[in-house]
Amino acid sequence: MTHFSDGFSDDEKRGLYRAIYERRDVRSHFLPDPVPDDVLARILDAAHHAPSVGFMQPWDFIVIRDPSIRHEVRDNFERANQQASAIYEGEKKTLYDNLKLAAIVESPVNLCVTCDHQRTRGSGLGRQSNPATDLYSTVCAVQNLWLAARAESLGVGWVSILDLEALKATLQIPPEVTPVAYLCIGYVSEFGSQPDLGKRGWEHRESLANLIHQDRWTR
Amino acid sequence: MTHFSDGFSDDEKRGLYRAIYERRDVRSHFLPDPVPDDVLARILDAAHHAPSVGFMQPWDFIVIRDPSIRHEVRDNFERANQQASAIYEGEKKTLYDNLKLAAIVESPVNLCVTCDHQRTRGSGLGRQSNPATDLYSTVCAVQNLWLAARAESLGVGWVSILDLEALKATLQIPPEVTPVAYLCIGYVSEFGSQPDLGKRGWEHRESLANLIHQDRWTR
Repeated sequence: MTHFSDGFSDDEKRGLYRAIYERRDVRSHFLPDPVPDDVLARILDAAHHAPSVGFMQPWDFIVIRDPSIRHEVRDNFERANQQASAIYEGEKKTLYDNLKLAAIVESPVNLCVTCDHQRTRGSGLGRQSNPATDLYSTVCAVQNLWLAARAESLGVGWVSILDLEALKATLQIPPEVTPVAYLCIGYVSEFGSQPDLGKRGWEHRESLANLIHQDRWTR
Repeated sequence: MTHFSDGFSDDEKRGLYRAIYERRDVRSHFLPDPVPDDVLARILDAAHHAPSVGFMQPWDFIVIRDPSIRHEVRDNFERANQQASAIYEGEKKTLYDNLKLAAIVESPVNLCVTCDHQRTRGSGLGRQSNPATDLYSTVCAVQNLWLAARAESLGVGWVSILDLEALKATLQIPPEVTPVAYLCIGYVSEFGSQPDLGKRGWEHRESLANLIHQDRWTR
């Protein structure tokens, strides 16, 4: 082996892979226990060390604890979720309506991760071919935070079902900034052994082999 | 502590945080050593265990080793990069032109991670409020792979400067599928102690404190 080998120990590797395989999108099982400031600071710093196009760092982090704001976001979710439910019929609708899809009020901390499209950091490097790369960078930050949270035994749930314009109004987010992720964060009574949507029969995991192509798209 | 504590050991936590802090966007220092199939399989499986909206798993992975395809993508990059360079002037242009921004031919494996917008898995759950969430899921897969690669001592570089329509033609990607990330992967002679774009003076890291808001956007 001539290559660089400031390698990870077996325990260190296991830590990384545990975070990846044991991470869950948590909607139930949140506990009201407060999240200590130093733990929150560690997962935010992990997010801030995500890759970003041109070193743009387009993200901001709105830490939401105020109950009145969280109730407003919960109402937003409930309206959006009623609309979403209307597209399903029969058994699928019954299943949908019984899924728990958010824990905005039950979790002690909410976090909105945003992307500022007008941030000048990075001077546009890498964004000319594809302007969406600033959103991609912001998602990398979310995934870093999610994995760090798992290592800290914190559950995280990403709430996708929200009217984003209403969310921007509630959080006073400027027009040029996109809310990318709305996360519920807190300690949990358990992490599921498999994803909720798998366990509840909504969808199952595809075989990885079906998703790998060699050299060109082939199907 | 009443909360769930199937906790990570100190070594396991360190492994996760090392991957996050020591991950680099690698453009130089690739070695030609082949990437063993089992290692590649591990990082792809890590990607496949990313969160996805509605458990949609919208990703595919095109593993590219064929030199003629990689030369075609390298030519695509060089054309796109000449266009990109034209927007800079003076010292910034000199600096830009001296940055190394891709290693498409030097790295032994390239990987294109795509998002299939028409995949029916997940039955649309979570995508009605924001159709971009399938792209976000795909980026979570990229970040999982990037961190797993770091734990395996593999460097990864994300090439953003590409004409995506030409890339789709080269890789025969169907119209309804978006190429989200084009990655160069291989062992390296070193991982930089800080990001290249920081070291080269293109941009520096923002203070995290400037990016955190309490309850609402405040600036």
